[in-house]
Formats: sequence, C-alpha cells, structure tokens
Amino acid sequence: MKIIATFNIKGGVGKTSTAVNLAYLAARGGSRTLVWDLDPQGASSYYFRIKPKIKGGSKKLIDGKRELDDMIKGTDFDNLDLLPSDFSFRNLDLVLESKKKPTHQLEKLLKPLSQEYDFIFLDCPPSISLLSEAVFKAADILLSPVIPTTLSIRTLDQLKQFIKKEKNKKIQILPFFSMVDRRKKMHLDILETMPKQYPELLKSAIPYASDIERMGLERMPLGGFVKSGRSIKAYQDLWEEINLNL
Amino acid sequence: MKIIATFNIKGGVGKTSTAVNLAYLAARGGSRTLVWDLDPQGASSYYFRIKPKIKGGSKKLIDGKRELDDMIKGTDFDNLDLLPSDFSFRNLDLVLESKKKPTHQLEKLLKPLSQEYDFIFLDCPPSISLLSEAVFKAADILLSPVIPTTLSIRTLDQLKQFIKKEKNKKIQILPFFSMVDRRKKMHLDILETMPKQYPELLKSAIPYASDIERMGLERMPLGGFVKSGRSIKAYQDLWEEINLNL
Repeated sequence: MKIIATFNIKGGVGKTSTAVNLAYLAARGGSRTLVWDLDPQGASSYYFRIKPKIKGGSKKLIDGKRELDDMIKGTDFDNLDLLPSDFSFRNLDLVLESKKKPTHQLEKLLKPLSQEYDFIFLDCPPSISLLSEAVFKAADILLSPVIPTTLSIRTLDQLKQFIKKEKNKKIQILPFFSMVDRRKKMHLDILETMPKQYPELLKSAIPYASDIERMGLERMPLGGFVKSGRSIKAYQDLWEEINLNL
Repeated sequence: MKIIATFNIKGGVGKTSTAVNLAYLAARGGSRTLVWDLDPQGASSYYFRIKPKIKGGSKKLIDGKRELDDMIKGTDFDNLDLLPSDFSFRNLDLVLESKKKPTHQLEKLLKPLSQEYDFIFLDCPPSISLLSEAVFKAADILLSPVIPTTLSIRTLDQLKQFIKKEKNKKIQILPFFSMVDRRKKMHLDILETMPKQYPELLKSAIPYASDIERMGLERMPLGGFVKSGRSIKAYQDLWEEINLNL
C-alpha cells in the first residue's frame, strides 16, 4: 500500500482535482484505491456525489470509536472508494491535540487498511497545522501542485523547510506544475527556470483548463466525462511519472 | 473603525490580493489603515516586504503578553501598517482553544486599536475553524472572493449557512467575483445567472490577470507598480462599492 497526499500550504492550486483524477486513473488501471477527503470543504466528496455525513464526526473517528472501514463508501467507479469529509473536520486539529501522540493518529488509523488498498490518496486542506504533521507521518509521497508564480515557489520552499525539520520519516516531496497558463509570461518564465533549481520537480504539468473546472458541474473525475484531450493526457502522464517514482 | 475580513473557506481565490490592494486604496484615500496577516503562509507580509517574525509567536499574542501595537510595522506606503504573520500562526486554533472564550479573543485584541485606525483588513487563511469563528465575531464585513465556478458557489453556501447558525452578531457577507476569465464559458454563464440568486453579490469583479500575479514578483500592491489598466480599475470599483455598503 502506498499513501499519497496531495498537499500545499496554499489553497486553490488543484489538490482535490489531482487526488480525484489520479485516484480514478489508478482504479481504472486495476489498483484498489481509496480517496480520503480530509478537507472540511468536502470537495472530493462532492465530486463523487457522496453525502458528507459522518456519524459522530471527526471526534469519534480520531477517538477510535468508529473504524475507518465502516465509513468508507463506494463510488460509481470500480475499485474506487471514498472516505468522505464532513464539516466537523474543521476542528480536526483540536481533536488531534486532545490525543497523546497527535501526529501519529492518522498513521494508526490507516494501518488496518493496508491489506485492502493498493493506493490511498489523502486530499488535504490548504494549511500547515497539526493535521499536516500527522499527514507527513502517514504518507509515503507528498504530491504538491505548484502554480508557476513567484509566491507558489516561496510556499514550496516553506514546505520543504518544514519537512526537513521533521527528521523522523523519509517522506518524498514530488512537486509538479498545476494550472499552467501558457498565455502568461510569468508562467512561461518559471516553467523554464524552476526545473534547474528543483530537480525533484516532475516533468508532467497540468494545464489551466475549462474541462477541469467542469468537474464540479459534472460531479465526477475528468475521465468520467472527457475521453481525450490535453487535460486528461496531462493527468495520465503525471500518474505514469509518479509510478516511476514509487 | 471598520473591520473587513477577506474570507473564503476555499483557498487560491484572491483573498490576499484583495486585502492588500484595497488596503492600499484605503490608505491612499487618506484613511489610517492596517492589514493583519492571519495566514501562516504570510503572503501579505511578503507582499509588503515585511519579515514575518513575531517574538514569542502566536501564543504570547493571544495570551495578551504582547500588545498588538508593539508588533505593528510600517509599510513603504503612507497611512498603511501591517501586522505580520509568522509560521507559529499555524497553531492559532490550538492557542485560541486554550483560552476561556476562544471566539472572543480577536475582538478583544483589536479593541484597543479602534482609535488608531479607520480600517483594519483581516487577511484570513483558507479554512473554517475556531480562528474563523473568532474572525466572524470581530469583523463588520466578510468580503468573500468567489471564482465563477460551481464549486465556489457551493463553498459560499457553506459559509452562509455557517454564519447563519451563529446568531450573536450581524456580520455582513459581501461576496464578489474574483479571477474572472471571460474566455471560459462556465465563468460567463455563472456571471450571468448567479446575481439573480445572490442579491448581496457586489457588481464589481476582479479579472484573472497577469499583473495581479506579478504582485509576488514586485512585492507590493498593484497600485505601487501599475498606474492604470483593467485590474487596478477593478479594485478601485470594488473599493468604491464596498464604501457604499459601509
């Protein structure tokens, strides 16, 4: 089982679309796949038309009074399950803080699932908090979408520094360009220069495209309503490239 | 003194650019203005070239061991001050939780500033948490940038429902369109239909534009390096429209 977290301190960079679309591709390729929506906004739950209601909320979940397994819901796609978020997840930090080893809780909750899934995608909220530290402990790969702007690069640096300080686990950070708009000069400049300074940057890039935004209208992964085109091709390339890094 | 929070549960919608640019316009118009960067990412501190280091971090701040006043820094612009964020702000929820009335703490901290400023902009992190509830208590206006997509409208609904449940204060929610890309059909459709369902929606809209992204490169408000154009015009219109609502 590999745990892949889509993560960025900054929001609106394409974390949820990435988790949802890559999970779809993984499942379509035959891997047993789970998406855990950790964001109180519940966007990935929404994309899969799953009602975000968890009995007892985040507290019972972290307290271990409910098994993760019980809350997992099937999606409309083979091999693809979802663990929905609900609004109580907004206080996940406070719930974690009340436990003895807060940063170990996610890892502990996920362990029993290792026989059931090949891939677990953690769709994380934008922020850096106690929950993020728990994610860093649990995940194998931190997949980080980066819009090619000055501020996004700075945010990636913040993340790298933070992870570096946590010495206890060798988590792999894989940044990649997201929402790339080739009509913008700044995007082109950064696409050109950044790979030299960040050798870990993946080569695949996701475009700024209307069909990706339409996922919210269709309420399904891109592959569910678009059969070909540069957006779907970009996610396929990204997923292949990630697999080479596993 | 009016307290205006730029707020959205979703990230990457233009909260920081809005806070920074409107604060600049307010200050240029002669109003004594403060921006409080509440986001651990520190983007507005970065825009104003202010080093985000707060002695004792967020804990001392909320504990009242340091006065807000001591931490305020001047910017390069007349009438415009900044209260920077630092990385310790990522645990603001936990610090608030440790206090007796967590949701009242921001309001309490801001009260002594009422003689010093005409406008305080709270630049909030993307999320809905204990800190958000404290913001809802303290602010007069919740200014919410909305990208014209299906998912953004859903997020606005979540916010409105949440605020409605909090009966204790008449906070005014002012949503407006942000990052509008008129080349996208979905944007045009929503620009057309949404105002009918959301009468509170402001008429001014901020475009998806390169010069706004360049703020991270220039490290200053738009008005500091662009003298005219549709982006600066859009912020001016927005600021005028907000003033009509005050």
